[in-house]
Amino acid sequence: MRIWLLVLAFGLIFVRSAIPQTQSALALMPVPASVQMGSGQLLVDPSFSVAITGHTDVRLQRAVDRFLVNLRRQTGMLPLDMKAADSANATLVIRSGSGGKDIPELGEDESYKLDISNSGAKLSAPTTLGVMHGLETFLQLVEINAEGFSVPAVVIEDKPRFPWRGLMIDVSRHFIPIDVLKRNLDGMATVKLNVFHWHLSDNQGFRVESKKSPKLHELGSDGQYYTQDEIRDLIGYAGDRGIRVVPEFDMPGHTTAWFPGYPELASGPGPYSIERQWGIFDPAIDPTQERTYKFLDDLIGEMARLFPDQFFHIGGDEVNGKQWDANPKIQTFMRAHDLKNNQDLQAEFNKRVQQIVSKHGKTTIGWDEVLHPDLPKSVVIQSWRGQDSLAAAAKQGYRGLLSYGYYLDLIWPAARHYAVDPMSGGAANLTPEESARILGGEACMWSEYVSPENIDSRIWPRAAPIAERLWSPQSITDVNSLYQRLDELSRRLDWLGLTHNSSYPLMLRRIAGTEDISSLRVLADVVEPVKDYTREETAMAVPTSATPLNRLVDASRPESATARHFADLVDAFVAGKAAPEAKAEISVLLRQWRDNQAKLQPLLDKSFLLKEVAPLSRDLSALGATGLNALDYLDRGEPAPDAWKVEQLAFIEQAKTQKGQLIIMVAPSVQKLVEASARLAAPSPSK
Amino acid sequence: MRIWLLVLAFGLIFVRSAIPQTQSALALMPVPASVQMGSGQLLVDPSFSVAITGHTDVRLQRAVDRFLVNLRRQTGMLPLDMKAADSANATLVIRSGSGGKDIPELGEDESYKLDISNSGAKLSAPTTLGVMHGLETFLQLVEINAEGFSVPAVVIEDKPRFPWRGLMIDVSRHFIPIDVLKRNLDGMATVKLNVFHWHLSDNQGFRVESKKSPKLHELGSDGQYYTQDEIRDLIGYAGDRGIRVVPEFDMPGHTTAWFPGYPELASGPGPYSIERQWGIFDPAIDPTQERTYKFLDDLIGEMARLFPDQFFHIGGDEVNGKQWDANPKIQTFMRAHDLKNNQDLQAEFNKRVQQIVSKHGKTTIGWDEVLHPDLPKSVVIQSWRGQDSLAAAAKQGYRGLLSYGYYLDLIWPAARHYAVDPMSGGAANLTPEESARILGGEACMWSEYVSPENIDSRIWPRAAPIAERLWSPQSITDVNSLYQRLDELSRRLDWLGLTHNSSYPLMLRRIAGTEDISSLRVLADVVEPVKDYTREETAMAVPTSATPLNRLVDASRPESATARHFADLVDAFVAGKAAPEAKAEISVLLRQWRDNQAKLQPLLDKSFLLKEVAPLSRDLSALGATGLNALDYLDRGEPAPDAWKVEQLAFIEQAKTQKGQLIIMVAPSVQKLVEASARLAAPSPSK
Repeated sequence: MRIWLLVLAFGLIFVRSAIPQTQSALALMPVPASVQMGSGQLLVDPSFSVAITGHTDVRLQRAVDRFLVNLRRQTGMLPLDMKAADSANATLVIRSGSGGKDIPELGEDESYKLDISNSGAKLSAPTTLGVMHGLETFLQLVEINAEGFSVPAVVIEDKPRFPWRGLMIDVSRHFIPIDVLKRNLDGMATVKLNVFHWHLSDNQGFRVESKKSPKLHELGSDGQYYTQDEIRDLIGYAGDRGIRVVPEFDMPGHTTAWFPGYPELASGPGPYSIERQWGIFDPAIDPTQERTYKFLDDLIGEMARLFPDQFFHIGGDEVNGKQWDANPKIQTFMRAHDLKNNQDLQAEFNKRVQQIVSKHGKTTIGWDEVLHPDLPKSVVIQSWRGQDSLAAAAKQGYRGLLSYGYYLDLIWPAARHYAVDPMSGGAANLTPEESARILGGEACMWSEYVSPENIDSRIWPRAAPIAERLWSPQSITDVNSLYQRLDELSRRLDWLGLTHNSSYPLMLRRIAGTEDISSLRVLADVVEPVKDYTREETAMAVPTSATPLNRLVDASRPESATARHFADLVDAFVAGKAAPEAKAEISVLLRQWRDNQAKLQPLLDKSFLLKEVAPLSRDLSALGATGLNALDYLDRGEPAPDAWKVEQLAFIEQAKTQKGQLIIMVAPSVQKLVEASARLAAPSPSK
Repeated sequence: MRIWLLVLAFGLIFVRSAIPQTQSALALMPVPASVQMGSGQLLVDPSFSVAITGHTDVRLQRAVDRFLVNLRRQTGMLPLDMKAADSANATLVIRSGSGGKDIPELGEDESYKLDISNSGAKLSAPTTLGVMHGLETFLQLVEINAEGFSVPAVVIEDKPRFPWRGLMIDVSRHFIPIDVLKRNLDGMATVKLNVFHWHLSDNQGFRVESKKSPKLHELGSDGQYYTQDEIRDLIGYAGDRGIRVVPEFDMPGHTTAWFPGYPELASGPGPYSIERQWGIFDPAIDPTQERTYKFLDDLIGEMARLFPDQFFHIGGDEVNGKQWDANPKIQTFMRAHDLKNNQDLQAEFNKRVQQIVSKHGKTTIGWDEVLHPDLPKSVVIQSWRGQDSLAAAAKQGYRGLLSYGYYLDLIWPAARHYAVDPMSGGAANLTPEESARILGGEACMWSEYVSPENIDSRIWPRAAPIAERLWSPQSITDVNSLYQRLDELSRRLDWLGLTHNSSYPLMLRRIAGTEDISSLRVLADVVEPVKDYTREETAMAVPTSATPLNRLVDASRPESATARHFADLVDAFVAGKAAPEAKAEISVLLRQWRDNQAKLQPLLDKSFLLKEVAPLSRDLSALGATGLNALDYLDRGEPAPDAWKVEQLAFIEQAKTQKGQLIIMVAPSVQKLVEASARLAAPSPSK
């Protein structure tokens, strides 16, 4: 029996409840446009084979080889197992309509159909891109059961909601080596992200070898830059995975690192050195001199040849204008050209730069601030300001991307990113024509507080909900389903060598200086780094690009699974809907926290990196005790005394504040227990 | 106050007890020849710098750069921290007498002196090799404490006991890619191993690109071979770490993979295909035809140019002679040349091959079997048979290496390898001149049951005790100290990207098909793979090079730390020497095991890979219950009934047998508890 399910309309949670057989819900991420469950399964064993019929080319063959490598990894098979085959009798038969572009392009057909039955699987797609996506879906379907590794019988028809689904990585504030980028490209391919936006220059570093203007990388990168060969290699690596590479050279602000090499480009007198701190800084390119445009013509020409993608990102954000205000020559120029303010001056600059980009055959993309009526409608606006700003651009005829709500460095929970839809807010009421101008969005990984060691843990798995938002039907919004599938995805990403999970115990052991980190882990598992820009605001010393990122705030996970689980338990419990085991589990956790301070103390004494953690540990211990007291009151059916409640709530408020730039995420749930225990008698006025 | 400590004479455990201050014992591995503790420490913070004075060259500079990379990793610093400096005021000042050979050679001076005080560190050595060793020692000294990362004030004077300290990796039975070898070379450098013996050809694969005889790798490797460029790259990588690379081309047996390409070399009619199974096979090179030697002259010439090391390994082991017996032409040849048996024929072959090796400027090395009076005294014998065989060779004037007792694939505990000394047994009574012929030894990783995924877990950390045996003074034998330092080392090896720890949870999760593997881990933590050659003997189906290595036996660790710890607890307890906490811990562990079967059952039902594990889980559960019963009897001071004891011991005997090629390592300790509980009454006759 086959059940037709329009996941489009009902969401994945429905799949779960609608299928009574043992078949579990599919842990696919992103959720496909349509899933039709069959019955039975296809075994994935050493005899598994793949054949390409119809169109073939080396990129497709490499995709199949990579698929087999990943399939072997997931199942523990060896290179002598699982072969590419010529035969139409292969386990998986691929038919690609055409190869598609050698270098992926915006708007290529990415759809695919995957049809799996007991006897075999067929994957068909108009282009190689679609085949690649289908292969990733196949990999996500593989599970182990009592018979072996297998994929369920299913028909999946799938295509993306938006054509531009990106991940931006800032490699300027901290340099991120090629091998780290490559494993993140692997992760992107897994969740069908298709644009790697490479933020290559900023105040803290110019990261590309320039043969035309070599002092850019020689004096602007501390020796940490990519050679052009490495860049070509990375672009090929990305293209093999269906990922476009869009370079960004942020200008006219965010350019301090250009000026040690070329101070004559700047609007102020200098001297200049690479910026070490974070923030918005004064140095900006002088937009009033012709040599600026000669220089940019050379640079953009060189980079336009190096990066094959159609789009070229010129940044354009956050110019504070102070150097322009202070430069009499620039002021004279502005008066002479009737430029009323710095915004006009920047627009003038953008116009010139856009012309250069266009001359070199590329389409300009820039952040919100570049939007100006003087610019041609071809320009793409990347919005960090929000859907309203995006909608405004679309109404004026500009194409746009959403990045507002997708900043991974703000350390938001996955669900919060997931809730941000490019077509909501001001964008919800666009005409179909205007809507079509919204190309998609990009997750952004600004790198003030990430190193190669912990960047994966800031990107993954939280980039996946954004990827799903941009690929899957708009109706797919169930948060419980998201988190279930995210756990599964996170495990799959481990096989790609991503270190989002593996770096955690390593960093904790370094902090503790010992193998047995169980007590540290109890604490670390319930804290999260401070959110938004609080890290800047709460820094004890001015952080710089040389500040070690080896503290608990750097090791701890952006989202505490333990706290989320505890919150679920407590919410059910105070609502009177919890099973008895839930209450027992609440109690076990509270006791563990209460008793942890004593266990952690020896480590706290031994490590300078744990000094700032000691107050957190004491708070967690006290929260555990408070929660247990509240449970006691509830058990006894005796309302907690008001004085106790007031005292506990005051303590909890204190416990919610950051220490060591970390927050204890279980405090709000303990608060709910306290409030519930006090409510027993008379409904308390506190909410 | 400084305390002079001759670790040489007293062993490390003495260091621990002899130093009353907070200074803990140094977790160095291998233990240096001499350690003189100072007082105080040198901080290792972002301002740390290194300068090279005296001789310098690019290899030394690369070694320093690598040292800084590793130091940053260990401390969580960034590339902008910790610099190479020119100044003699650097934190660490290096003085190298001379650069040494570009490619390391046997017998180069490897000594170094490391002098660390509160104010700075000096590392001096006659050669770059010594500097490299000293830098590794420095890295092992770094620890975290309440003040920061630091190294203790200490003077270390160090040099190796043996000049040849090797690790052999068989890349034929399973191909091991270059990146896996590289990380293992990093591990070797950490423990001062200095020879990578690369077992490049065997029945199951010829793994080197040959330009002279390309059908060797084209038809003999399933496409899994190293290009000559890759080999040169690896040799450079090894040389940079002070590691020689000795190639082995095993002949005249172990050559099946040569014959699909060149059947005319074989002694039998063929046809030939790459061997898929394990064992000793009939195919052997025909030593009676001149074209064999022409072919070998070409091949050895080509490989002698490719591999710069002075030594060239020709294997020579395990020729069963069946093809020779069956070939009338060979029999005629033997009669004509007065060769009495196959051993004489092989000796004739070896003599010719040795001449070819010598003609190409290299020194021959071979396994035990090549030893024959016809061979020149320059030949080095690698003994898999034991110290007696080694001593016999030394007495005849041959140099030798010990590998007996160092086979990592036999899955012995670290302590057992550690106890094997090259100078014991027959080698204990050699004259000084004969003793000097014993160059050292090699750990051997034969690869029947390792893949790139789990090979690190078979090599590390168990290669380290062998490395220590070959580097440290003979008197360093304390096993408790060994295991303490091994834990620490294992953690350090994690930073190099070795996967001996990280692969374990990944493989368990694959087996379980889920994220929560806690119950599987309880079981997996107390089992070990069967030892010696039991895996062959107990195989349910004939294992081949295509058999997936994804079972619990492949994931589980060679040595159960939990079982070792439990044994220590039980031994102390039954001897009446245990603290009360020890008894409590015994009880906690037993309960955990007893209750684990119920927790593991859902996973057992869900995974085909866990079917074979179910009986182990039941046994572990029953062992837990048995142990708890025994504790009960002991608690009550009531002797366990004889019938119960007999029944339990019978069960335990059964529980000690392999299931799924795994052994429950806690069974003997549970047996001790049972025996102790029965002894209460009358001393039991059972031991």
